[in-house]
Amino acid sequence: MTTAVEFAEARERVREFVRDELLGERPELDVLGDMPLPLYQGFAKTGLSNWWLSPELGGLGLTLEQSVDLVSELSYGDAGVAFTLLISIMATNMVWLYGSDELKQRHLRPLAESGGFAATLGSEQAAGSELGRTATEARREGAELVLDGEKWFATNADFADFLVVVAKSPDNPSGHAAIVVPRDAPGVHVVKRWDMVGVRASGTYQVSLRGVRVPASNALSGPGLRVLEVGLNASRVLIASTAIGVARRIRDLSIEYARQKPLRGSTLLSNAVFGAKIGQAEMGIGVMLNQCRAAGRDFDSIMLGGAAGADFLRHGTLKSALETKMFTGQMGWSIATTGSEMFGALGYTGESLIGKLVRDMRYISIVEGGDDVLRDLMFNRYALPEGKRY
Amino acid sequence: MTTAVEFAEARERVREFVRDELLGERPELDVLGDMPLPLYQGFAKTGLSNWWLSPELGGLGLTLEQSVDLVSELSYGDAGVAFTLLISIMATNMVWLYGSDELKQRHLRPLAESGGFAATLGSEQAAGSELGRTATEARREGAELVLDGEKWFATNADFADFLVVVAKSPDNPSGHAAIVVPRDAPGVHVVKRWDMVGVRASGTYQVSLRGVRVPASNALSGPGLRVLEVGLNASRVLIASTAIGVARRIRDLSIEYARQKPLRGSTLLSNAVFGAKIGQAEMGIGVMLNQCRAAGRDFDSIMLGGAAGADFLRHGTLKSALETKMFTGQMGWSIATTGSEMFGALGYTGESLIGKLVRDMRYISIVEGGDDVLRDLMFNRYALPEGKRY
Amino acid sequence: MTTAVEFAEARERVREFVRDELLGERPELDVLGDMPLPLYQGFAKTGLSNWWLSPELGGLGLTLEQSVDLVSELSYGDAGVAFTLLISIMATNMVWLYGSDELKQRHLRPLAESGGFAATLGSEQAAGSELGRTATEARREGAELVLDGEKWFATNADFADFLVVVAKSPDNPSGHAAIVVPRDAPGVHVVKRWDMVGVRASGTYQVSLRGVRVPASNALSGPGLRVLEVGLNASRVLIASTAIGVARRIRDLSIEYARQKPLRGSTLLSNAVFGAKIGQAEMGIGVMLNQCRAAGRDFDSIMLGGAAGADFLRHGTLKSALETKMFTGQMGWSIATTGSEMFGALGYTGESLIGKLVRDMRYISIVEGGDDVLRDLMFNRYALPEGKRY
Amino acid sequence: MTTAVEFAEARERVREFVRDELLGERPELDVLGDMPLPLYQGFAKTGLSNWWLSPELGGLGLTLEQSVDLVSELSYGDAGVAFTLLISIMATNMVWLYGSDELKQRHLRPLAESGGFAATLGSEQAAGSELGRTATEARREGAELVLDGEKWFATNADFADFLVVVAKSPDNPSGHAAIVVPRDAPGVHVVKRWDMVGVRASGTYQVSLRGVRVPASNALSGPGLRVLEVGLNASRVLIASTAIGVARRIRDLSIEYARQKPLRGSTLLSNAVFGAKIGQAEMGIGVMLNQCRAAGRDFDSIMLGGAAGADFLRHGTLKSALETKMFTGQMGWSIATTGSEMFGALGYTGESLIGKLVRDMRYISIVEGGDDVLRDLMFNRYALPEGKRY
Repeated sequence: MTTAVEFAEARERVREFVRDELLGERPELDVLGDMPLPLYQGFAKTGLSNWWLSPELGGLGLTLEQSVDLVSELSYGDAGVAFTLLISIMATNMVWLYGSDELKQRHLRPLAESGGFAATLGSEQAAGSELGRTATEARREGAELVLDGEKWFATNADFADFLVVVAKSPDNPSGHAAIVVPRDAPGVHVVKRWDMVGVRASGTYQVSLRGVRVPASNALSGPGLRVLEVGLNASRVLIASTAIGVARRIRDLSIEYARQKPLRGSTLLSNAVFGAKIGQAEMGIGVMLNQCRAAGRDFDSIMLGGAAGADFLRHGTLKSALETKMFTGQMGWSIATTGSEMFGALGYTGESLIGKLVRDMRYISIVEGGDDVLRDLMFNRYALPEGKRY
Repeated sequence: MTTAVEFAEARERVREFVRDELLGERPELDVLGDMPLPLYQGFAKTGLSNWWLSPELGGLGLTLEQSVDLVSELSYGDAGVAFTLLISIMATNMVWLYGSDELKQRHLRPLAESGGFAATLGSEQAAGSELGRTATEARREGAELVLDGEKWFATNADFADFLVVVAKSPDNPSGHAAIVVPRDAPGVHVVKRWDMVGVRASGTYQVSLRGVRVPASNALSGPGLRVLEVGLNASRVLIASTAIGVARRIRDLSIEYARQKPLRGSTLLSNAVFGAKIGQAEMGIGVMLNQCRAAGRDFDSIMLGGAAGADFLRHGTLKSALETKMFTGQMGWSIATTGSEMFGALGYTGESLIGKLVRDMRYISIVEGGDDVLRDLMFNRYALPEGKRY
Repeated sequence: MTTAVEFAEARERVREFVRDELLGERPELDVLGDMPLPLYQGFAKTGLSNWWLSPELGGLGLTLEQSVDLVSELSYGDAGVAFTLLISIMATNMVWLYGSDELKQRHLRPLAESGGFAATLGSEQAAGSELGRTATEARREGAELVLDGEKWFATNADFADFLVVVAKSPDNPSGHAAIVVPRDAPGVHVVKRWDMVGVRASGTYQVSLRGVRVPASNALSGPGLRVLEVGLNASRVLIASTAIGVARRIRDLSIEYARQKPLRGSTLLSNAVFGAKIGQAEMGIGVMLNQCRAAGRDFDSIMLGGAAGADFLRHGTLKSALETKMFTGQMGWSIATTGSEMFGALGYTGESLIGKLVRDMRYISIVEGGDDVLRDLMFNRYALPEGKRY
Repeated sequence: MTTAVEFAEARERVREFVRDELLGERPELDVLGDMPLPLYQGFAKTGLSNWWLSPELGGLGLTLEQSVDLVSELSYGDAGVAFTLLISIMATNMVWLYGSDELKQRHLRPLAESGGFAATLGSEQAAGSELGRTATEARREGAELVLDGEKWFATNADFADFLVVVAKSPDNPSGHAAIVVPRDAPGVHVVKRWDMVGVRASGTYQVSLRGVRVPASNALSGPGLRVLEVGLNASRVLIASTAIGVARRIRDLSIEYARQKPLRGSTLLSNAVFGAKIGQAEMGIGVMLNQCRAAGRDFDSIMLGGAAGADFLRHGTLKSALETKMFTGQMGWSIATTGSEMFGALGYTGESLIGKLVRDMRYISIVEGGDDVLRDLMFNRYALPEGKRY
């Protein structure tokens, strides 16, 4: 684990990156053209790429609790950039927990040492909230697995170094496996980039797999769908954490606007209704932060234990991760809604950043399980079984 | 007043226009390029342009209550198109109520007979919610008024036939006047089109007035700011009515999606949570409709009375118009929020219309007075004075 | 139908009754001791009891739209009193629409001429939202029906003149019948008065029927459950209307309190946050009123048509009645919630009426179908069938 | 600080107390008659009274973070009991931080060793949210202070061992002092017990002070109003924590009810809408718990530091305490609102506990500063000053 000093330094480097590369007028962060890859190469130069990877792999080993604050800083600058930089954690955690040493050395070490990205290929057209409907197949041929299928929402897939693909697999007793696939394996084809409503500095892709061959040892151990569920724990917490940064940005823009907006012989800043709205938002920011950190600690307590892989499989989706994504999505949307009415008619134009921030905020309640799915999980896994209830 | 049969026919023609011109894939309605003027010329061919104008002027004379339903139909197709077609009512009502016969014949009759648009130039950089801060001036020079100033959010101004400009005016005892200005008067210059977050089939412009000369008789009678307040009554009700159409579209798209979305051996349509959300939205649609119609009737009862101009000046901003815009903005946003979570991750992409509908819905709470402004008016004008309370 | 003048007089008489009997300190309206029957005898003296009954029966024949305003006045004084005075409409409407002339003369005429009450015995322990589970039976014995069963929530049943009982009935092709039972019929026994959280000036009872004999002609025509559904239309609208009166009372108490509450050198009345809350509540009051009136008109248009009974059976539960009760329950609760935080710590004590008003407001979303039930009806009856959607 | 084992034992003892004394039918906890003092004597026998007091004083020294869980357990049983047992912390913390050793030995040690209560007398009729308007005076006469005034909402004051009274004090440079007054000092008179809407197992009193004499050394050091503000930190966090217990109780009662409530051939438990509501509530419970604990840790980090008194004076009201009370009050109310609609009509009667739980929940947003006051503090202290923002 990283010391407080090292963490403070890392955070300061992130703040510098945000100040230098993301704040100010950055129309290029809100378009659907080319991915801003140079920006990400710039981030890699800070040495912080994939900051959560273990020192054993040459990484910094920041905890998930610490990651919350880094993501809050990044998303203060741009939620799409934060999303791009955090989402590899889903795939890397799966490999770290359930991959062979060789897989870790081959695929994780480079990401720790020189940056780069990983993508998870889970959802399909018919398998969104119901992963049991996965149609992608990995059939065994000798010492190889051959993958065929069509994956829908795969963030980072185009420029990732490797993919973790969830597929039906007769080899796996559970019927599904999670399999590491190099991005440049023949047969991996990006069909299109999805035209996303927000977080447009990130890229989410539809990917087809046609006769893609990998060594059978690329399959991670453990039931594929459960492994994916485990992988979602960290990414849900960090996606949730982007709400903090976006909300902080909304607060700061609002105060800045109010400071110069004349109102009845004074400025909007001295209007009690304005103060009440910001006071309420500030509360929301504080609670989101505490919740994200608590979920981070909860995750870390398992991750840093002696039997993380098995423990995580036993837990599956963590309650704290579910509640964090649900809560920040809702509280964040409430703050974004208030924000969207804060700037008068200007706020409904491209002159204001608020329109983008509202669109960005929306993704939190959408990706990696909408609230209906999460409420259902929360009810069935954690409220119904008496022993699981707090 | 139009008979029920004539109204039903008018409504049917609107529905046809919507079906033929607005439904389906219409990316051109959500861009900030050229205004889709041919579309509006097409609408003019239905003979329904400015449907509210009096038969005395060659118009159809539909009531505001009837207009609610036409706007609901139009906005089912596209809120920006509806906004473009309805917003002339603010300027035409001011001229109808406070203009000379000659002004009516010169400026309203053409709009009744062959379509066309009118724009209101009210807001300025420093005069948004506080119109008393208006800086545009109309000074008297002989039999003319000379206007100078910079107006901010003026919908339709670029392609309107005439403008109603609110300006400081020493001639008017109240200090302000509302003045009719032909769009093609020398010195009227469109500075830019605002890049709006939604309702992008409409055009809202910044306009400068530099030494613009009009006959002094182009000034409407009555205190300028109060005249503007009167003008806002009808447009607020019709802007509110766009929420109905957008909400209906969200409902129908949701049901259509749910019908084909597999879920646990059935489809989303048979999921009780989905049903509850749509049941709640259906309630909201019904209440919005009843509220808009009630406000329409309230307006009509004054408009069709014998002393509409004086009565409206006495009332100023109608309570029913305030409550209608506030309410539909809030209820509409609640429905849009629910809608934005209805389509899974697809709903966060350009493959779904929901992103546009959410952005479109937002304008209702923004234009012609945000909720903070309206709550303040509601409190001070209608809740505080005991005699005004219901 | 009553003229506007007669209605205005009726309304004025209600206001006097409210001022004289309900406003001020009335702790007796919030206890669970004896029903305040003298109060109701006092109301009968105004000549307004059961104001909706037809002039053909000696009644005043006020419309449901007019009734909305009377209920708003009554509930401004006390929601429990309003509930007691309005709820007979459910039973009387069923008899008026589906009873024989003899039944109308025998049971409705006295209620029109000299006051009195009617109760509906619908719900049972196992038949709340699912009336198909009704266990009470009416078996035919010669020219008589013999009723046995246990009915749960029957408002007014103790002191009503007659009851309409919903029971399984082999005689009725639908399997259920609605049957008129005199309150003093042998075998009708009030088991207990329910200890209600609010509206405590009303009485809701559990009633047992043991071998209760009535002429077979006391059965109303039509399928029993559908007849009950029709009966609920008017009562749902009027229950909804109590929200208006309670909300108006909360607004007025808040303003009164704010006027004398010192705050930062002025009073709470001049605080912008206070104004915003009241402005928002005023909007809510206005929309609730318009919605209740619209639902009243909708009901009246059928009731005053030539084939009301058949038309209502065809419609069953009216969309407007569903949306009205759902909406006012939700908006009313939002206003009550705001109100409950308006009076500081005093508002959490018996020194303030707000605690009672919050409890009273709650009943709107509870009685005659909770929102879950109504959302389900709304979805299945009015949103799902394409032809029924607005 | 207490070890984990000791804490677990303490928690288990609290659970036993709750199970034995609070769960089940306990109508005596919801009446305004005599305070249930024997119940509190029973709690004293567990040895846990005033569990937060320092081992130096013979106390258990549980941290505020640990206290959150104890209060959650207590309030699961009854929020009023929890309130009674926790609220002494406000007074004892003020004495601990700002009292002389002698005061600590005289007044805190007995509370640590054998139970008992302390009360804070802060608010007055004209000094609720504006403590600067305090009228109670403490004038110096020789070595004594003589107190005169009228204090409004003083929980536990009737049966407390000592009181901390906030008064104007010329002796204190700030103009106000917080002064320890034995409950049995001549001139201390309980005027009345407030008739509270909920938390009725607690007692809140109006107290008059008439020529009450105490040694001048009973004045705590530090500016009186700031000392009170510091005192509120811990009590606000623990009041907030009662929301957790009440919400857990609502969840459990709902599940218990749903398990036996027949619905469409199954039970309510298998209804997706029910599951969604409980899933949402479970999320809320989790976030409230994490937030309360985080605020507890925040407080503890100062309290256990070497200069707690000075540090707290510098901080004044802690941001985490403000956000915790605001948040749990709002989230708790949302859960209570949902709960109040969960039990059908039964939930509106005395047969269900939900009515009491709703009333109990309400106190969180009311006592020790309503949300308007807290939003204002949050804005001015923590959002406006750039350096204080997260």
